[in-house]
Amino acid sequence: MAPIPNPRIVFAKPIPEGAWPVIGEHLVYDDSRTIDPNTVPLNGGYLTKALYFSPEPYMRVRMRDENIIDYSSPMKVGAPVVSLCVLKVLRSEKEGIEPGDLLYGGSHWELYTVQPYVEARRERDPSWPPWTIHIDGFIVHNKVPDPKGAFPLYKYCSLGGAPGMTAYASWKKYAHAKKGETVFVSAGASAVGSMIIQFAKLDGLKVIASAGSDAKVEYMRSLGCDVPFNYKTTPYKDVLAKNGPIDIYYDNVGAEAFAAALDNMALFGRIIICGQIAEYNVAAENKFGIKNTDMIYKLNLTVNGFLTPYLAEEYAPKFFVNVPPMIAEGKLKSEERIYDGIESAPQAFVDMLKGGWDTANGKVVVSLVNQ
Amino acid sequence: MAPIPNPRIVFAKPIPEGAWPVIGEHLVYDDSRTIDPNTVPLNGGYLTKALYFSPEPYMRVRMRDENIIDYSSPMKVGAPVVSLCVLKVLRSEKEGIEPGDLLYGGSHWELYTVQPYVEARRERDPSWPPWTIHIDGFIVHNKVPDPKGAFPLYKYCSLGGAPGMTAYASWKKYAHAKKGETVFVSAGASAVGSMIIQFAKLDGLKVIASAGSDAKVEYMRSLGCDVPFNYKTTPYKDVLAKNGPIDIYYDNVGAEAFAAALDNMALFGRIIICGQIAEYNVAAENKFGIKNTDMIYKLNLTVNGFLTPYLAEEYAPKFFVNVPPMIAEGKLKSEERIYDGIESAPQAFVDMLKGGWDTANGKVVVSLVNQ
Repeated sequence: MAPIPNPRIVFAKPIPEGAWPVIGEHLVYDDSRTIDPNTVPLNGGYLTKALYFSPEPYMRVRMRDENIIDYSSPMKVGAPVVSLCVLKVLRSEKEGIEPGDLLYGGSHWELYTVQPYVEARRERDPSWPPWTIHIDGFIVHNKVPDPKGAFPLYKYCSLGGAPGMTAYASWKKYAHAKKGETVFVSAGASAVGSMIIQFAKLDGLKVIASAGSDAKVEYMRSLGCDVPFNYKTTPYKDVLAKNGPIDIYYDNVGAEAFAAALDNMALFGRIIICGQIAEYNVAAENKFGIKNTDMIYKLNLTVNGFLTPYLAEEYAPKFFVNVPPMIAEGKLKSEERIYDGIESAPQAFVDMLKGGWDTANGKVVVSLVNQ
Repeated sequence: MAPIPNPRIVFAKPIPEGAWPVIGEHLVYDDSRTIDPNTVPLNGGYLTKALYFSPEPYMRVRMRDENIIDYSSPMKVGAPVVSLCVLKVLRSEKEGIEPGDLLYGGSHWELYTVQPYVEARRERDPSWPPWTIHIDGFIVHNKVPDPKGAFPLYKYCSLGGAPGMTAYASWKKYAHAKKGETVFVSAGASAVGSMIIQFAKLDGLKVIASAGSDAKVEYMRSLGCDVPFNYKTTPYKDVLAKNGPIDIYYDNVGAEAFAAALDNMALFGRIIICGQIAEYNVAAENKFGIKNTDMIYKLNLTVNGFLTPYLAEEYAPKFFVNVPPMIAEGKLKSEERIYDGIESAPQAFVDMLKGGWDTANGKVVVSLVNQ
């Protein structure tokens, strides 16, 4: 068999702080490579065909100048973009990995890849501080069960994958939820937020959740949220004063939402900080500034911030056992927006960034199944 | 025996927000009462003679207009001031309480009191929110061991009492200290801060601590602090950037100290918020505003705020068993500043407020032993 095209999306140039990625400049479609899947040397590894790419916000932080320090390692300029992907094994020289296996984990944005991927991989740089997460070291390949039609495979990019794991692990570890309590979820229509709404309802809680459009409010209502609201038309503080106090605040937003939640917490309340998207693109001096941290001691609160990779070792195995059956049984819902073909990946990434995780249109996924 | 004078300090008038107490106006010495200790009816209770009063900052919050909601119940206008006190039992009709017993707990600022005190006592008001602490319900009388000269009794107002218990309980519950870690304590010369420095050194930590004068810096050094500094002459951020990262931040100050600590925490660090004295008298709109709460998730931090009454049930018994022997053996040090006589109590209270807990001159105590 002759070599076939192996198109890829290359991270061609660092994106300046606060700027949007420009397709064709920072993210470039490159179809110059070919591969022969039957003969390419595996060097003890395995060959995968990508089925789905999962564009996510944290990737934007990685697309920076490599000299800037942040909480995640920078991507390699000139190499393929790396994201979480659903992969199918075609050939293998590695024990425990068999042709036909389905994997979920980090890989190149290209159709065929010899694993572990080499070109975009970084070693840990000694100049990084300890809190910089070495992404290539963390996103390993998890075998995932074949749903055999019970749900589409791309759900492994939404509630069956990282966003679901993020919600699952943080809720299990930090919420200490008790039936009858009240939770407030900001960005409740996001991939993570929509899972938190559902986990909280399964645990018997009253759920208040915010989002930025009326369509998202309806989406949250459809997930069982008791008090969904549009923060652009109804101030956080009014809704929380009326429907609180809050036992648990699940923060995806920060800033005004965080301050309003602090003022409306219950005694012994818990705050879980997953992210603070309201300030991702705000210069330090223009940030909101939280002036009511005194509520943390006055109400005997516990605040836990986290990044999913640090919870994965403890919770990923439980997640991949417990959650796929819940998806199959229809106990957990999610919506996805599918972009077809590798050429659409840069646009999918930009659209995802502009909608944030906070999209009623569903989690953005790029499908490669037709290629 | 004829009745003898029973002088008292009356909370005569609520103190306006942001104002200092005026002696003779808000806090009034009243020697019009008499008592016959031998014949006063006990009604099933017991009669105590006060040995020491313990003026503390939280009392200022209680001296407000009773219609203002805050985290502690307001004092009763016209009744004696209530504080933690060291008491000696003179007579008793209550089982388990014997003449000669030493007690530490809440009582009137008067020489002789029939317990439980009645005049200044409030019942819980249904209009208070759940987070308002019903102080009269919380500050019970703990029997304390007679040190028999191994340390002065007034130490039960400093490291043997509430400030010590505050430090002990919060450190045991929230610090998860490991030998070799680094802790930063703000207001390290305060009653609580100075205990934290000592507990941290006993646990084998490196200790950084701040205070507002060079005398306090020397005091902290004498307690074993490795990196004491004067925040008025050396910025928090410089010291922490040089001597961090910090595994544990023990916050007594808030504002700039809190922000600088957040920027210099280690991965998986713990922050314990005991109080934020920098902003107690700052109007909401003028508060500092914390702009780097993103470090809480980027560093996977845990932040615990607390008020001592909520920890007392779990930790007070352990405290009164473990800490007095450590004081007797000289393993824990504290300094006290003794005001002699009940008439000096209002001035002692004002001086304590102006020095804060952050005083190298020692914990303020009012002695009644000569009366």
